[in-house]
Parts: sequence; C-alpha cells; structure tokens
Amino acid sequence: MKLVETTFQEQTALAYEGLFTQGSGYLHIRGSLEEHLSDAPQNTRYLRLPANVTAEKFAARGAKWGTYVPGIFGQHPLLNREMVNLPWFLGLAPIVDGERLDMRRSNVSDYRRALNLRTATLERTLVWQTRSGRRIAVRFERFVSAARPHLCVQRLTLTGAGVAEIEAGIEADVLTSGHDHFKSVSVTTAGTDGVRCRVVTDCDTEVQMVARLRANGAKWQFIGEPRRGTLRCQCQLPVTIEKRTVVTTSRDLDKPQEAEELSFEQLHTEHAAVWAERWEKSEVVIEGDESGSRAMMTSLYHLLRCHVTNDPRVTIDAKGYAGDAYFGRFFWDTEMYLLPFYLYTDPARAKTFVDFRVQALPGAMANAKEYGYRGARYPWESDEVGREQCPSWQYRDHEVHVTADVVYGLAHYARAVDPTYLQGPAAQVLAETARYWLDRITFRDGQPHLLGVMGPNEYAPITHNNAYTNRLVAFALSLAGEGAVAKALPIYRSTDGLLVWQCEGFDELAEPEFDKLWTNRQTGYAGNVSQERLYRSKALKQADVLMLMLLFPHEFSDAEVRRAWDYYLPYTTHDSSLSAGAHAIVACRLGLAREAWQFWEMTAGLDLDLAHGGAAQGIHIANAGASWLVAVLGFAGMGTALWHDALTLRPRLPERWKRLAFPVVWKGCAAAVDISPAGTTITNRGSQPLPVNVNGTARTIAPNAKETFPS
Amino acid sequence: MKLVETTFQEQTALAYEGLFTQGSGYLHIRGSLEEHLSDAPQNTRYLRLPANVTAEKFAARGAKWGTYVPGIFGQHPLLNREMVNLPWFLGLAPIVDGERLDMRRSNVSDYRRALNLRTATLERTLVWQTRSGRRIAVRFERFVSAARPHLCVQRLTLTGAGVAEIEAGIEADVLTSGHDHFKSVSVTTAGTDGVRCRVVTDCDTEVQMVARLRANGAKWQFIGEPRRGTLRCQCQLPVTIEKRTVVTTSRDLDKPQEAEELSFEQLHTEHAAVWAERWEKSEVVIEGDESGSRAMMTSLYHLLRCHVTNDPRVTIDAKGYAGDAYFGRFFWDTEMYLLPFYLYTDPARAKTFVDFRVQALPGAMANAKEYGYRGARYPWESDEVGREQCPSWQYRDHEVHVTADVVYGLAHYARAVDPTYLQGPAAQVLAETARYWLDRITFRDGQPHLLGVMGPNEYAPITHNNAYTNRLVAFALSLAGEGAVAKALPIYRSTDGLLVWQCEGFDELAEPEFDKLWTNRQTGYAGNVSQERLYRSKALKQADVLMLMLLFPHEFSDAEVRRAWDYYLPYTTHDSSLSAGAHAIVACRLGLAREAWQFWEMTAGLDLDLAHGGAAQGIHIANAGASWLVAVLGFAGMGTALWHDALTLRPRLPERWKRLAFPVVWKGCAAAVDISPAGTTITNRGSQPLPVNVNGTARTIAPNAKETFPS
Repeated sequence: MKLVETTFQEQTALAYEGLFTQGSGYLHIRGSLEEHLSDAPQNTRYLRLPANVTAEKFAARGAKWGTYVPGIFGQHPLLNREMVNLPWFLGLAPIVDGERLDMRRSNVSDYRRALNLRTATLERTLVWQTRSGRRIAVRFERFVSAARPHLCVQRLTLTGAGVAEIEAGIEADVLTSGHDHFKSVSVTTAGTDGVRCRVVTDCDTEVQMVARLRANGAKWQFIGEPRRGTLRCQCQLPVTIEKRTVVTTSRDLDKPQEAEELSFEQLHTEHAAVWAERWEKSEVVIEGDESGSRAMMTSLYHLLRCHVTNDPRVTIDAKGYAGDAYFGRFFWDTEMYLLPFYLYTDPARAKTFVDFRVQALPGAMANAKEYGYRGARYPWESDEVGREQCPSWQYRDHEVHVTADVVYGLAHYARAVDPTYLQGPAAQVLAETARYWLDRITFRDGQPHLLGVMGPNEYAPITHNNAYTNRLVAFALSLAGEGAVAKALPIYRSTDGLLVWQCEGFDELAEPEFDKLWTNRQTGYAGNVSQERLYRSKALKQADVLMLMLLFPHEFSDAEVRRAWDYYLPYTTHDSSLSAGAHAIVACRLGLAREAWQFWEMTAGLDLDLAHGGAAQGIHIANAGASWLVAVLGFAGMGTALWHDALTLRPRLPERWKRLAFPVVWKGCAAAVDISPAGTTITNRGSQPLPVNVNGTARTIAPNAKETFPS
Repeated sequence: MKLVETTFQEQTALAYEGLFTQGSGYLHIRGSLEEHLSDAPQNTRYLRLPANVTAEKFAARGAKWGTYVPGIFGQHPLLNREMVNLPWFLGLAPIVDGERLDMRRSNVSDYRRALNLRTATLERTLVWQTRSGRRIAVRFERFVSAARPHLCVQRLTLTGAGVAEIEAGIEADVLTSGHDHFKSVSVTTAGTDGVRCRVVTDCDTEVQMVARLRANGAKWQFIGEPRRGTLRCQCQLPVTIEKRTVVTTSRDLDKPQEAEELSFEQLHTEHAAVWAERWEKSEVVIEGDESGSRAMMTSLYHLLRCHVTNDPRVTIDAKGYAGDAYFGRFFWDTEMYLLPFYLYTDPARAKTFVDFRVQALPGAMANAKEYGYRGARYPWESDEVGREQCPSWQYRDHEVHVTADVVYGLAHYARAVDPTYLQGPAAQVLAETARYWLDRITFRDGQPHLLGVMGPNEYAPITHNNAYTNRLVAFALSLAGEGAVAKALPIYRSTDGLLVWQCEGFDELAEPEFDKLWTNRQTGYAGNVSQERLYRSKALKQADVLMLMLLFPHEFSDAEVRRAWDYYLPYTTHDSSLSAGAHAIVACRLGLAREAWQFWEMTAGLDLDLAHGGAAQGIHIANAGASWLVAVLGFAGMGTALWHDALTLRPRLPERWKRLAFPVVWKGCAAAVDISPAGTTITNRGSQPLPVNVNGTARTIAPNAKETFPS
C-alpha cells in the first residue's frame, strides 16, 4: 500500500513532509525534497515563547527540515530541554545548464511521489523540462535502513542526454524552534567522495554524520563553507548517484556495521525484510473501507517506524519524530495511547516503554524533590532522563495525573506480558510514586483530597478532586499497598449518583456558549476565545470522565457511561487530537454506531487531512495509536489484559466494514482475530491453550486450532 | 531631616541607590555614585523571563543605574512594554595622578552621604587619600530641580593641591531588564563644554539629553565612543565643577526654560522653595518616635518626588520611579494605596491620577475587546495608554478587580474633591466598565457569579466569587445604575454568617503548614515552596477580606472584622509589601494596639531596612502611601470622604507617640489635625465651616477657628 502525491503544491508541502517521514527508530528524517525548495530558509532565528498548547500558531513556511535522533536534546533558554533538529544530510540536487531543479520554479511534469508503507521506501519521479530546452527524467529513492538503523540510503537517477551537475552535502545551518543548539560545528571532507559533519549540542552530546556519494567515474569537488559542506561533480547522462549517510552519536549503544560492499538493492532487500516482519506482527486488515484502511496502514506505518528497539533510554515523542513542535518530549500519550499497540503486537518492543519509565525514576524523584515532595513525580513533559521540561506552569505544575498514568502503564504491561514485572525494578516506581501521592494529597478531617490539579481536560487548569486523576491515583496507591487511602479518595457524583463530575464544582462553571463564541470552526474553540474564558467554562478540550471510564470499564455501568456521554459531549471541543479516539471506543461500548463511526473518521483521517495541516508539525502519533485502539478495543470490542484473563471480544463492526482482521499477542500467546458481519474467527498461533470469550461465549482454543463464533 | 549614610558598603549600595532616588516628577534618577563603581557593568545582556512576582530573584550587582522619564516605554520581546532605563548622565569623576576615585578601591575616609528630605538634595563628602600620597577633600551635590523639572544640577568640589583630571559625560550603553531598547543612539559634542545624547526607543519615542559643564578656565576635550560621550579636562585644585543636564523627549507637554544665567545657589533656592511648599501641605509630624518619624518623612519624600504634576498621561509606577523591577507599570496600587494621600493633601495633584484612568479608557476598551468582552477592562499592569502589559497570564487574565478598583478611585475622588466628576468624562468609565462586568459575569439560574478570578491575594489564582472582587464590582455596577445585579452578586459566608469567605470553597484549600515548610524566614513563604503548593493552599500573600473591610468599613460589624482577622491572619504571609499597612489600619479599628504597632513597624521600615534589600529594586511606593494611611486612617482613625460628610476621627495613638499632627484637605476645606494623648485639636484653615466628628462628638468649626476634643 502506498501514499501517493501526484502534484506538488506549496500549501500541502509541509503536510507531506510530515506524512512522508521515514525512520529506523534510531534515526528519523522528514519527507523533505532532496534538492530543497527555493525561498524556504531553515536558519531563520526567532524567539519561540511558551504558549497554550492548543492555541499556539506556527509560522507558515515552504519547508521544514527535520532530522532527529531520539535522545539528542539541547537547552533552550525559554522552552527548556528540547529535541535537537540535527544537520540536514538529504541534500542531493541536479543542476542542468545552470538551472537547479526546484519544485517552485522549474517546469516539471509527470510528478509522482509515493511512500510505500510496506517497505518504508520513498520514491519520487518527475520529468523536468529545463529552461535550456532539455527533457530529463528524474527519480529519487530513499529509505532509512531498518536493518542498519544508523544508515540512510538515497539514489538519484537522471535519464536524458548531455551533462548534469550534481550537488550533495550536509547542511548544518539549521535551528530548532528558531534557536541554535550547536556549541560547535565542523564540516570537512571524508576522503574524495564524502562529507563529514560533526556537531556538539549545548547539552554536550556529539553527533557525527558521514555522507558518501557513489557515481560511476565521478570526480567530486568539495566546497567548504561555515556550517555547510558540499560535493559537486559533472556527470554524463544517464547517470545514477547514490548517497549513503551514516549517523552516530556519543549516546549510541551500538556501532554501525560496515555496508560498503552491499549494493543499493541488497541494502533495500534486507531493509524491506525487517519491515515485512513488522507488518506480519501488526497489520490490521479492513475490508470494505479503502480510506479507513489507508488511514489505519498510515498510522501503523508511523507506529512501526517510531519505536526505538532495544534502547530503554528513550521512548516515542508526541510528534512521532516527524516534527519538533512538541519539543521531542514524552507525555502521558506513551502509556495511554501508544503502549497498548505494542503490548498486543510486539511485547518485546513494549518492554522498552516501561523500562524507559523505570530508568527515568531518578529524574522523577528529582522532580518531586524540586516541588518539595518525597518520592517520585513523573514529568508532564519528560526529557530523556525523566526531568520535567514543560515551560508552561499550568500543565507542568498541575497535570499530575501522568505520575499515575505511568503506573497504569506498568501494570498493563505486567498483566499483558510479564506478571513478575511489578515485583522487579518497577517495584521502586510503585513505592516512590505512592510516597509522592501521600505527600501530595491533602487530608481534611482524615479524608484524602487531591487539590489543585489539571485532568486530561486541559481547559480546567486548577481543580479539586478530578475524577480521572483521583481514580488513577487510587489505582497506583492500591498497587503500592496503600489501599485505605486509595479507597477514600473521592469521586464526586450528581445527587442521583449517575453522573460522575469531572471535578468538584464542575457544574458551577460557565456555559461555553459555543454558538455565540466559536465563530471560526476552521480552528479549535481555544483559538476563538481568550484563555481566561476557557479556564472558567465547562468547555472540554478532550474526554476526561469518559477516558476514566475507558480505562476502568467494569467500574461503571452502561447507564453511568451513557449519562457521562450525554452530559459531557455537548461541552467537548475535541481541540485535542487525543479526544476523538477515546470517544469512538466509548461509543462502541454504548452501541452508538453512528457516533462511533464519526469519531473513527475524525481519528483515522487526522494526519491525512492535508487541507487542515495534517502532519505538517509532525505525526499525531498518539492519535495513530488511538486508531489501532478504536479498531481493536472499539470495533472488535477487545477487553484489555488488565481486566480480562481470556481474550475477550465483543465485535461491533461499522456497517461499511466487511472484514476486520488483526494479529494479537494475548498474555504470551499469539493469535489471529478475523471478524466479519457473519462471525468472528480466532486462530491460536501460539503453543499454549488460549482462553477466549466472544460476546459472552467462553471457549479455550488449542494451539494451531481456530474457533468461529457466529454473530 | 536627613537620611545619612556614613560608610559605603557594597552590600547596601543598591539599597541606598534606590533610597536616595531624586526626581522632579518628570525626571527621576537613582542615587548612583557620580564616579560609578568598578566591576559594576551596566550593559550585561540577559533574558529576563516572566516570573511569579513574589518569587522572582534579581542578580546581585554592585550598582544599578536608573534614569527614568515617566511615559517613556520600550517593547520587550517577553515582558511586553516596559519603562526604559535611559542613558546615564550623572557621570562626574575626578582622576588624580592616574587614579580614578572608586569607592571600592580608593582609600577614602570621613565618608558621609546625606539626602536632605526637605530640600531633596543629595550631598556626599569624603576625604580621598590617593595612592600617589595626595589628600583631597571631595564634595558632590545634586538635585533634580522641582522648579524646572527637566533640569538636573550637579556640583563637584575638590579641595587640595595640584592638578586633577575631571571626566564627565553621558553613557548610553545601558539596558532595561537586560534588553537594549534603543533603536538609535547618537552622542555628540554640544559646543565646547557639552555632550548631547539622543536616543530613539523601540517604541519610537525620542529622548534627548544635553549635559553642560562649568569650571573656571577649564578646556574640555571630547572623546566620542559608540554610545558614550565624555568630556575631559585638567583642573588646578581647589576647583568647583558644575554639571547641568537638561532632558527632553518627544512626548513632552512643555519646554524647559533657559537657566544659564542662574547660579547653582539660585537654582537651588527656587528648587528648595517648591519643596518647602510641598512639605507645608503634607508633613506628618510624629513626636516620641524618631525612627517612625524618619520612616514617615522618607515615605512622604518619595510620594512628593514621584507625582507628575499636570500630566494625566502617566501616573506613579509600582517602584516609584526608583527602579525598573516592575517594568514601570501602573497597578491597582494607584487607587488603593497612593491616591488617598494626594486626595487629602493636594487635591489638584490627585486629579491627574483619576484623569490618567479616564484618558486610558480607549486602552481599557481595547483590552476588553481582546478578551472578547464589551466595554472596558483596565489592565492589571498598565502602560501609559491603558493597555495590558502583564506577561504572566495568571495575573493578567484573572486579577480583574483592578477594573473595579479604578471606579472606586474615581468615586473616592468625586466624594473628596469634586462631586461633579462622575458626571463628567468619568461617566464613560462607569458605563464602559459596567458593560464589561455584565459580559464577564456568569448568570446561573438568573443569579450572577464572578468565576475564575484572582483577588488581591495572589496565591489563590483562579477562584470563584472572591468576596473582595464581588463587592468592588457591585460598587462599580451600582454607580452605573446596575443596582439589581450589584445586589445579587454573592458574598459567601460561614454558616454562622460571621466569617466572610475569601472565595467560594476557601475552606477546602490545604493548610499551608508554615512550621514545616517556611524554613527560610529571611525570604517570603513563596520563596520556600513551589508555586503549585502555594496555589492550592490557604496561604495568603496579603490581606484580601480585610482589605475589603477596610474599603467598606461601615458594612461590616466589629465582630465580623474581628472574626476575619482571627481566621485569616494565621494564614497571611505578608509576602506582599501591600499587606502590613492594611493590617495596621484594621488592627487600629479593632483596638488591637500591639498588633497595630507591629504592622506599623513592618510598613514604615520597609525601604529603610537595608539589611533585607530595602529599596534596592526601587521604592515600595504603595507601601509609602500605606505609611500615610496607617497614620491618618489608622492611628488618627480618619474616615474617608466616601463614607463621611464630616471630618471624622477616632484617634488611637500608639503608646510611644506623644504627638501626631498632619494637614488635611477635607472636601475643599484645608485643616490641621493635631493629636496628643491628651486630646485632639482641629484647626480650620479654610474659608468654609468644617463639620468634624471626633470619637463620636460632632462639631462645626468656623474658618480660622480651632476646636479641641479631650481624650
């Protein structure tokens, strides 16, 4: 399956750049044009200020390079530590008769750019009619090797007659959030056909890139400029030029393997083989809904691209290493939106998620200390060592639920993968976070209260006894043996007991008056009103109480969930990309087929919605995880391992879907789920008996056997 | 009365610089040393960040120049518009045998620096033993002419033998909050004996300074450097050098008068005459308490210095033009802490305060619009045109009471000075602010509520129905004819009705645990705990409910005031310099003599408390106003014109005070109040009968008559 762009358009250039991001987990590159674009400087300095995350506006620009190695951070004077946008090594440009190929100015036809999702390969073909009257067929190919994560391989094929000049190199005059994070930069030759760039970030990490060019008989000339090294040569057409770049850093756990003797095709074959394995483990088949299927595949592609294998010192940032808008930091998204996909498709990879939080415990303890508390306080915006980096105090100080979310993630992993995990290194996380909570809780007449918190709905900044937070904290305290306090943490309800209040006094907030105030529906509600008004109104950025009910489904009756749905939905702006997916899943539970479908469409289409920016600032990776959650927890109705011993399904396929099939690893046992309107078939691909429960019918499926449950 | 420094010490240098600030209303200069200090650069760039106002820390440094013309603002990239620290024109340094006088390095004895409060003249004398073995008596004098507000006059007298070099000029390499606000700078000669400096700020205001030197037979040599112009000459000792600097700006309403023909003594005489008049109108005599008297005189000196006469386009900033820590902006301090002093001592000057708010109405309307409201919203931190400049959203967005405080100030002026004022230009302020409130109020079941506000206690950031705010808003709405809504705005009380809650749910907040958490008592509570903890606790930065009771004294019984005192005082940190004065006045009302005295001492001593920084970052000018309020409203027990037709006193002199005497203008009638333990004498100095009421005894005093009321 391919994502295809058939016309280059300036207004969608950024969105495609994000959408076409490639990566190996270790190294990620945005889908920028190899020859770059005119009038799109990447070194414009500006002072990016801390802002309300929903209302921040980004400058319009033609292109935004992004080269990211997870874990490489720099210190910004206002925004704190942020992931560094590294030098750009993709540059590979043909110049013919003095004209440089330029999608803005050149006469180009037959343009086609395609990202092959199955092989993670990007290919661009076009015909270039030069001003001098020549006609040249151009083909760019590239991939970041999944088999050799330090290596990016590019190929440029020019067909036609005459001579072309090729320019290729490394450009280190790049910024992150308008800021220069390089303490030192050197760009030199590497032999006769290479450029070496070495930068040291302002956090003292060293990053080195060596780009080597291959073209038959080419003689390369090196042009060194401050922060830029370029190789140039003249080639007789037709010609094929390869560029291979190896990236290493002083944080690396491994060394890149030599690959000089391997051809482009050999490298591509081993790369594609790794991707085939990944898809085997995780492909979600949707029949009857082409756009839904494409959206799902796109989400899975980015989830598979993002995940860093075997390095628990980093996890997945909020923009899926496809942009630096969220500073490359780690949020609660990790546990709530990303972890489940890996838990149920590739448990070994899921382990690095939980190990990340365990290794970040010293950072979390330092955060707690800084706030004057004992124990461990996980950061709202985490850097690679677990220190808080969020520059806006309302989130940083008050959105404390993340510390409990982390424990929920650890418990989820333990139940789904390794029951001993909580007794191992994670035990200290349980103990230290519980210590923090006991210090953070206010006791009034012996009763615990959690005051001054922001729940998942970030439009209610400082509230008391947020239901979501209190329940998650109670969960974490229970696991740490503090059941008494956990039980006493209040969840406020309406007088009839059916409606769970988002927080104490929620009902006293002002009506948001969407009809009157939300005049520009092209932008979120937060873009229409002042923050002050937002902060005193019932407007919800995203699901809050519903999210709670999604995480603890058995604790709330359908009537309670329905009541919360009816009450909160009219107030919910879905300004957050985390909202729609949660609503889709809850709608499935409630049997609200139409609503489930609407929210699924909002979820699935987000990064493909080029007209509204799509992935311009990066992939909404949590939303990508949510797409999987909607299909599996929503439409297939799977219960999580936290609350179920058997693989439990309650399928409610959307009308349009003729088939939904996906692999799943259930408590160590691989299985395949295949749902159609007629029924559900589960195949046990593991070596142990698999207990299942479909629509209330319990069975145990023997290894290699399958069972079908008619609808 | 003089403030005297007898030893120069580095650790108190900044505090004296602030305390010894001189000014004419139009022009203000900090008390920096004419020869400057070594190792105290004034051009260190840094990025000052928005911060919690109580917890912000300032870099330690040897000196901080400050040259301010009210109304000259610049645009800071993070902090918004701020008053610009202008070029430093005080430089006047002797150099003997190559040694420059330097309080840090030179051998100096018999040092004495004195600020004469009555004449606003600063004089410094010292004996300088040079390294070359010479002994020179040095005397610096200076004043900013009250008679010619554009003019600063300096004199340096050197006594001894031999030759000295004199260096004098203008230094434009200065910053504000670490930022350069000058778009252009030129420094040139002005004739043979002058330096002319012209800067244009980044808000396009032009400021020009011309400094001229006078010394018998001196031949001046000009040295021009970027941003600095210096005149040098050789003089035979003894010698007297005069430096006169005239400052003008493109905002000026008047032109400086020529004064060349006048001698230093003549200029000083006319200057001192103006100050004598001012003191005549406002001196508060305290007998039996020398330090209290000195503190009161210091406060009055700065109040008299600060006030800009006849220019309603500016008012008094939070640091009294003696520092730029609070960005030279205008706060509610204006109405609540400063206005009364002028109202009751110099009503013509008081008028510029209220006129300032009236002329700023368009700015206030623009603020409302920006927040999505109709009407006018006065800014928490006002620039010269009434636009909001506060960079921290919690204050900017939520501390809305200022808009009602402004109306309280207008009403206070109308009752005390001009009953027609509210029907004049101020009428529009009443109407537009009422329009804002009606839009800002949330109606629930027809009942008005004011949600999401910060009251004067800035440690409770987003609360509902703050009692102070609601009462002030009701006051403003009533004046605008919106009595029905005004009456319905709730004030929450304890179930027995006696205790006024600061806001809804105040009692649910966490106990502040001062004993456990406030470990460093050298700094405020806010410096000891995280802002997060602060924001969910009962800790009060300053009086909030008590402030309300002080402004509406007749609406609360003594029992209610006492209950509020008993409840809130244990929670009050007095981290704000606005707190102690209010407490002192309420203590007087409650007959709490010991507490009144303690809070008076906290109030009066603040800027003289050099060990704790004193006026290092500027004069606490609101606290200076509060000192007057404590004496007059507290110890003399005067009721304000808002609530009293007669001049009403209820004296409760502190034990130590043998006499408290002050002039007062009561509704157009000048009077003198003289209180001793034996009784109170009121003299009518006006031309109309003066109704008075002392301790409940009502009388009318004829013009030029006096009446004594025994205790």
